[in-house]
Amino acid sequence: MSEMYANRRTRLREQYSAAGHAAALVSRPANVRYLAGPAPHGAVLLLGRTADLLLCPGPPEDRPTEGRPDEALRVQYLTAGQGDPAVAAADFAAGQGADSLAVEEHHLTVARHREIRSVAPRLRTADLGGAVEQQRVVKDEEEISCLRIGAEIADQALGELLESILVGRTERHLALELERRLVDHGAEGPAFPTSVATGPNSGRRAHRPTDRRVEEGDFLSVCLGATYRGYRCEIGRTFVIGTSPADWQIELYDLVFAAQRAGREALAPGAACRDVDRVTRQVLDAAGYAGGLPSLTGHGVGLEIDEDPQLAPAAMGKLDACVPVTVEPGVHLPGRGGVRIDDTLVVRPEADGGPELLTITTKELLAL
Amino acid sequence: MSEMYANRRTRLREQYSAAGHAAALVSRPANVRYLAGPAPHGAVLLLGRTADLLLCPGPPEDRPTEGRPDEALRVQYLTAGQGDPAVAAADFAAGQGADSLAVEEHHLTVARHREIRSVAPRLRTADLGGAVEQQRVVKDEEEISCLRIGAEIADQALGELLESILVGRTERHLALELERRLVDHGAEGPAFPTSVATGPNSGRRAHRPTDRRVEEGDFLSVCLGATYRGYRCEIGRTFVIGTSPADWQIELYDLVFAAQRAGREALAPGAACRDVDRVTRQVLDAAGYAGGLPSLTGHGVGLEIDEDPQLAPAAMGKLDACVPVTVEPGVHLPGRGGVRIDDTLVVRPEADGGPELLTITTKELLAL
Repeated sequence: MSEMYANRRTRLREQYSAAGHAAALVSRPANVRYLAGPAPHGAVLLLGRTADLLLCPGPPEDRPTEGRPDEALRVQYLTAGQGDPAVAAADFAAGQGADSLAVEEHHLTVARHREIRSVAPRLRTADLGGAVEQQRVVKDEEEISCLRIGAEIADQALGELLESILVGRTERHLALELERRLVDHGAEGPAFPTSVATGPNSGRRAHRPTDRRVEEGDFLSVCLGATYRGYRCEIGRTFVIGTSPADWQIELYDLVFAAQRAGREALAPGAACRDVDRVTRQVLDAAGYAGGLPSLTGHGVGLEIDEDPQLAPAAMGKLDACVPVTVEPGVHLPGRGGVRIDDTLVVRPEADGGPELLTITTKELLAL
Repeated sequence: MSEMYANRRTRLREQYSAAGHAAALVSRPANVRYLAGPAPHGAVLLLGRTADLLLCPGPPEDRPTEGRPDEALRVQYLTAGQGDPAVAAADFAAGQGADSLAVEEHHLTVARHREIRSVAPRLRTADLGGAVEQQRVVKDEEEISCLRIGAEIADQALGELLESILVGRTERHLALELERRLVDHGAEGPAFPTSVATGPNSGRRAHRPTDRRVEEGDFLSVCLGATYRGYRCEIGRTFVIGTSPADWQIELYDLVFAAQRAGREALAPGAACRDVDRVTRQVLDAAGYAGGLPSLTGHGVGLEIDEDPQLAPAAMGKLDACVPVTVEPGVHLPGRGGVRIDDTLVVRPEADGGPELLTITTKELLAL
């Protein structure tokens, strides 16, 4: 494990050194975790020419965490009076004679940045940009294995829910029950707030559960995910409550299913992200659902639930092998409800069997 | 309600106008909520000389929320291509002829700030600082009433847990059950991740629940809170499992109880925050627990669980009436466990009966 973290840091070091910087300060939590392992909340990582330092706020007691950072790292806990770890890191880098420091300008606030400059006025700061996020896009098999286990956990939790009685229960309760089952099956927690949407709420992206109860004839859409060793996956399904779905429900379901399948089938190394979005969206557009469509039809997952790449009309770039993404089109008809179908898949070359589906719960329209 | 939001905005407007700014951009989520009501995730509020504008990312469908923003506000949803609401707000302000814009430099990232400057190069930006956070410190009775209901909910959830069988159950399960009960009793959700700590874990601040099971003879410390209409409260208690606590457990409990009582009794309008911390900490110090004490012994609560003021050795400032704070000393003995006792109280003048205790679960040492 330690070697893996060291390799990741070496790749980053090569990058910022090539850009002429003596040191880099990584502050975005998921990036710190990627390079240093599980670290206390608020920790920052300082990469120097040679030695690396993890600076953590407060005494160890105050900042518990699951797991421990990479043992090869020097770890320093600040005492209460020592302030912001990012500022302390810049001070340390300046003390070591560094003349330039690359920082994550998309994460550091203006106020922290100013404090860094006042503590270390001779240290030139530059933008590290999304260098670590870029490195995180393509996953190794260790990371994919965490996502795969997380997906299995989510499939299990969802499967158990489907065997229970649903009519009369509220969205809130169903969401809580799913989250309990995720943890039962070994998740660290939900990967994001579990969404359960019934009747007119169904099909809405990231719907927050309400006190509405499941009724006969409802669409029920559910979106959940497990966090396993820090990695977050996502699955979304829509069901119909009662013995016989209405015609409009079957039609809408078939349409979203067709759109989602088109997206899944378009996943391949070298495929443009916008093309995957387009083939998904086209199916819905052609049926007259152009308006009100979500701004994206899928996104990367990993240490965060919403990572690069985005599958969206304006997305740049192409997919690589070993990139896990969601494919999650949906249609919501105001006042009536709708359908969302959401899988997590890993992009794989044709020779390896094509996209690997991690979330394997059936996508048949189940009447519950 | 709308008048309340308008009054808050007027107070802020007076402040930044007096500092010579034409407009202010509020981006920190809790501050947006305070001034605009429930708003979609990522929304920012632009206050002009007269009209105010709430800018929300993505189409409404993409960004559901609980409740609606203040109806008096003009609300604008950005389409996918329109980018960052903060940047759009600055562009709008410049278009309206504003020459200076106060921004929250402690929340805006360096990258967003740069984008604002490039979109509106003639707009001078300045630091709004913690103006909204300052305004949020003293609560009105409406806000306190939300905290009071939240505290009742947390008391109920905790009370029910104590009636159930605890031995053999894991920290994770107990935490999930508490969170389910919070929602059962009307909370929007937990105010922060519920902490359940058993045996050697007990007494650790913000301990994350593990798979350790409750055993006979354990200390069990629990910390939870409810979110009610956006407001977050906190309660922490420590219990002993089994019929007869050990002598060291009784002694440690009495000590932390005495420290916590000293802190509670020191809460009064005009009391220095550091003095409240000092009287609490002194009790523990005097018994030889100077090392390993947490960096603070209490903090404000409200729309966030960790607000100003801080009750800490280096804290500046004095308490005002109608400021809700926690008092939460604890001692953790590595390898053995420990005790935390945590209440949410509202600072009130002597004439009104002194500090108002919101979390009323007993602080006797219960043997469960």
